[in-house]
Amino acid sequence: MRPSADRETGNLKPLTADECFMLLHEHQRGVGRIALASGRPVILPVNYLLDGEDVVFRTAAGSKLTAAVHGQRVAFEIDSVPSPTATMDDTGAVHGWSVLVRGMATRVSDPDEITRLGLMRLQPSAGGVKPHFVRIVTEQISGRRF
Amino acid sequence: MRPSADRETGNLKPLTADECFMLLHEHQRGVGRIALASGRPVILPVNYLLDGEDVVFRTAAGSKLTAAVHGQRVAFEIDSVPSPTATMDDTGAVHGWSVLVRGMATRVSDPDEITRLGLMRLQPSAGGVKPHFVRIVTEQISGRRF
Repeated sequence: MRPSADRETGNLKPLTADECFMLLHEHQRGVGRIALASGRPVILPVNYLLDGEDVVFRTAAGSKLTAAVHGQRVAFEIDSVPSPTATMDDTGAVHGWSVLVRGMATRVSDPDEITRLGLMRLQPSAGGVKPHFVRIVTEQISGRRF
Repeated sequence: MRPSADRETGNLKPLTADECFMLLHEHQRGVGRIALASGRPVILPVNYLLDGEDVVFRTAAGSKLTAAVHGQRVAFEIDSVPSPTATMDDTGAVHGWSVLVRGMATRVSDPDEITRLGLMRLQPSAGGVKPHFVRIVTEQISGRRF
């Protein structure tokens, strides 16, 4: 994994890779969004875990998702964006942030790893049976505060 | 624009196109996420407007975003996902929803249209000067409640 070389401008302040991982850690089990681009792009909300430097989420057997992410490069994002009418601080700023992970999605197939991830008790908000784990192997991470 | 033929299964209940547009209308000026897939996918949070059946957002001049979305197919998503620890109702369900728009992104260049959109007072949470409008011409809309 290498930090992204992306630079932001204007009122956007880049976050360090450490800051990005801290935010991913703090907000895990909450919701992030994954973008798949097999053909036309699609975005799906998922509850996630941070496992080392990788994002892990659960999915249903045989779903489009499982097929789509198998070995594909995907994007995963979490954010906290204030309402445009949110109260400003003394400097006239309202604060928000976003973190973007880019990497390769792989289905977790090792039984020991599945057991270990299962013990981390990730409960998807969207119901249904989701016995499979997908790991996004982080290749690039970037974030910004605004 | 045609409704998506996607069908969801399990605890996911598909929304009608009308329900999707209603949610997009209710939550406009709030945050949605756009996925671009010129090369590797990327997700960015944006504040948006619903203009007719299209999603419109503002962006900075000369940014990667402006270049990336010019005539490209993109995905745009809004959602409300309950915390996995949220209180269940009598049926044991926690409720959330997501709406996905897929379409072609085009930069708005007509001066009258820019003026009209400007009057709709879309204020991006992420600061900086964002004088340009991008329109996602909706080709497919789908949503689900869970």
